[in-house]
Amino acid sequence: MSQDTATPAYDQLASTWTRLHRLEHLQAIAGWDQAANMPPKGNEARAAAMAEMAALLHRTITDATLRDGLERAEQEPLLDWQRANLREMRRQWRLANALPESLVQRQQLATSRCEHAWRSQRPANDWAGFVANFREVLALAREEAARLSQAGGLTKYDALMDRFEPGMTGARLDTIFGEVRRWLPDLVQRVRERQAAEPVIAPQGPFPLARQRELCEQVIRRLGFDFEAGRLDVSTHPFCGGVPEDVRMTTRFGDDEFLGSLSGTIHETGHGCYEQNLPRAWLGQPLAQARSMALHESQSLAFEMQLGQHPGFVTHLAPLVSAAFGTQAAFAPQNLHRLLTRVVPGLIRVDADELTYPAHIILRYEIERALIEGEIEPEDIPALWDAKMQELLGLDTRGNFKDGPLQDVHWSAALFGYFPCYSLGAMYAAQWFAAMRRATPDLDERIGHGDFAVVFEWLRANIWSQGCRWSTDELVVRASGQVLEPAHFKAHLETRYLG
Amino acid sequence: MSQDTATPAYDQLASTWTRLHRLEHLQAIAGWDQAANMPPKGNEARAAAMAEMAALLHRTITDATLRDGLERAEQEPLLDWQRANLREMRRQWRLANALPESLVQRQQLATSRCEHAWRSQRPANDWAGFVANFREVLALAREEAARLSQAGGLTKYDALMDRFEPGMTGARLDTIFGEVRRWLPDLVQRVRERQAAEPVIAPQGPFPLARQRELCEQVIRRLGFDFEAGRLDVSTHPFCGGVPEDVRMTTRFGDDEFLGSLSGTIHETGHGCYEQNLPRAWLGQPLAQARSMALHESQSLAFEMQLGQHPGFVTHLAPLVSAAFGTQAAFAPQNLHRLLTRVVPGLIRVDADELTYPAHIILRYEIERALIEGEIEPEDIPALWDAKMQELLGLDTRGNFKDGPLQDVHWSAALFGYFPCYSLGAMYAAQWFAAMRRATPDLDERIGHGDFAVVFEWLRANIWSQGCRWSTDELVVRASGQVLEPAHFKAHLETRYLG
Repeated sequence: MSQDTATPAYDQLASTWTRLHRLEHLQAIAGWDQAANMPPKGNEARAAAMAEMAALLHRTITDATLRDGLERAEQEPLLDWQRANLREMRRQWRLANALPESLVQRQQLATSRCEHAWRSQRPANDWAGFVANFREVLALAREEAARLSQAGGLTKYDALMDRFEPGMTGARLDTIFGEVRRWLPDLVQRVRERQAAEPVIAPQGPFPLARQRELCEQVIRRLGFDFEAGRLDVSTHPFCGGVPEDVRMTTRFGDDEFLGSLSGTIHETGHGCYEQNLPRAWLGQPLAQARSMALHESQSLAFEMQLGQHPGFVTHLAPLVSAAFGTQAAFAPQNLHRLLTRVVPGLIRVDADELTYPAHIILRYEIERALIEGEIEPEDIPALWDAKMQELLGLDTRGNFKDGPLQDVHWSAALFGYFPCYSLGAMYAAQWFAAMRRATPDLDERIGHGDFAVVFEWLRANIWSQGCRWSTDELVVRASGQVLEPAHFKAHLETRYLG
Repeated sequence: MSQDTATPAYDQLASTWTRLHRLEHLQAIAGWDQAANMPPKGNEARAAAMAEMAALLHRTITDATLRDGLERAEQEPLLDWQRANLREMRRQWRLANALPESLVQRQQLATSRCEHAWRSQRPANDWAGFVANFREVLALAREEAARLSQAGGLTKYDALMDRFEPGMTGARLDTIFGEVRRWLPDLVQRVRERQAAEPVIAPQGPFPLARQRELCEQVIRRLGFDFEAGRLDVSTHPFCGGVPEDVRMTTRFGDDEFLGSLSGTIHETGHGCYEQNLPRAWLGQPLAQARSMALHESQSLAFEMQLGQHPGFVTHLAPLVSAAFGTQAAFAPQNLHRLLTRVVPGLIRVDADELTYPAHIILRYEIERALIEGEIEPEDIPALWDAKMQELLGLDTRGNFKDGPLQDVHWSAALFGYFPCYSLGAMYAAQWFAAMRRATPDLDERIGHGDFAVVFEWLRANIWSQGCRWSTDELVVRASGQVLEPAHFKAHLETRYLG
């Protein structure tokens, strides 16, 4: 950066963030390696190396000179995009600086103890053992919420959610989820009745892993993922990591099943395409990052649910499946579509279908918000969980902690405020497709003809290329003409499942 | 580290080196990933991230407070091993601080330009094009040599070699290589005559890659490599990277050939076992690092040549080869051994057999030393190359630059002083086995019975576990009763090839 610009403070900040971006690159690749490659005895040294890097990044963004730099830069004659970048810098700075180092360290200890124990407590159905560790995690999360709330002027739960979904509030979620709550149980009931009359043929395995991998790679290519700038590998818990310039997606394969891996891979490809298509001109700056976690989920769910389970897409998927595993009656397009869209209320969130998924989220949102606001304590969770599962999905989960509140890692890891992003993402995805249909009235025919580019081009123009240029609400209005409107999600479900 | 120890300066230094070790961990994993996994479009961002990390490490080790810290620590009441550690710290500090930042940057630019162009100049046989870039690389290497020479009190070439092989000098090499020069051409001639009378059956491919990989993994396990603390992957140029806690070896496979990959993998396993068995108690400190590059090569060559081409080892290898690819006459132990030990003078160093390899090294050593000392210029290289190839191996290489001085990456990368380590390693490896035979007179019978542990235990006790505890000469004397003595290498070759 030149010393002679009219924006020396901004330029200095930009160069700090470029440095953060480069170091985070190594952190991201090492993090992916840890999940995809690392042998077990590498764990201790890797953890120490990752902690060293985390401390270095934290020191960089809490450097005392940044406060003054941000203030001076705000007085400089910036271009609009620079001002947006500065807004995002300040946001990251505020989040990092709101918490004292000692709290961060105590949280790291408490969450890693709780998460480590949870890995064996879950299979052992040991709720009491979990609560013993979780109490400390919750206490520290409440302290974090109080500090972030003070720094950002938000309620406690909103302050935690703001880390993942800036601008979203509990008040808005109450309205959004409150509405879904009203129509969801009845809709599930009607769809279940209808599907009971639709026979479905189960695929016959085994499905060789090498064939599954080839199939996934073919589908990923059709979805526009650039293998010159990314990879697909295997890990226990599928995720999308790496950096925008080199996206590392993972999946998992078992030879008795293929649809779950395939859908999961399509899901990760949505995340991957978002990352690969973030605005190149700003790479290294906050402006070039994904807008929020709900927006990120809106991409994975646009790929997995809106496009990936679209009847037109499935007609093009079916021959690839037959080519991979040999012809079966189960692979006929109609049957494949029925397999993909089968609605079965179940206890496990990550196995849930598109229709019952929001019930899992609403339940968790209501419980975690009450936990953070101090309205309930950990020992109140099981009764609430049971009541809500009964109310929303008609399922009895009493005493089954391992398939109840012990099923997710999020709370052990203090990721309070993250769960809503999944369902917000599903709603945004429905809203994107509604907007696409207004712009391209023959969208569904085009998808049926295998022209998926129309979807990718809309997402690229309206979401991917925008990075953090706008607040989430502004981005959503620019893209679809209105802020989040869950009616699109309801309409999508009714059309797909009852239409 | 406590504030109340009697060695506060030393403790402070130790914590700085622990920090370096942790950051170098991320650098090493990202470097391995770059060669083994990274898709092409990730290159630019990776290079920027790696440069950022290199700059950070350089800033850490050139921090102004270290000079005083080293001086104060040297006055503290240290244990012997701490004093050895401090000696290695000072050595690393001296190497990093001898060069001004601007020289380091100019070298990075010049070497990456030269190396990048070399990748296409080599296949194009474009010597003139290479020299145009190489002139600048050499000028900067001479400047580096002058500065390191001033800082360390060594001659210019010795100062460059000292980066890889501390304690070794051109004067000693002249004696060592001078002696080899005297007996090598005649020995090659006699072995060639003898082998002309020994028919050898060529293996019939193809050799499926999956089978090759399984075979390599079996052999690596037999060699004691711990797959719980390392991996084997594929890259264009095989190497051993990663960190002692998580060693990343690579190889390459082609389905028309398997012995080269297998030997190469055994070679890397020697490097890998050295790294995996460095002293754990000191990990993170210089003391726990490998002693030198010649010592490292002595491990890879102990594995590849001394053990891997031992007739007793080959009798155990043969059935594994047959199990992998089906029975062939070529896989009979005697024939397999003849394939592995076939002596054929050739133009390419990396394809050379054990016997002709030193000729390639002596030639390069003599040329690069004269280049650094300013006795010759780049345009003198081809004539010298031709004359020495004729003299040492009886081969005509005139006009064939791509299989002559353009064949190696080392000079484009300014790695002057590295080549001798390969042949010193071969000599040390012979010396280790001579020492093992004195300690275990039935060593060869034991190897023939498949008891390889006797080899690994000797290497572990005498080399691996010692890290940088002693200077190279002291380590060698402790291990084998004398400093480097090339007569062991000659005796080994005579026994194996004429015995």
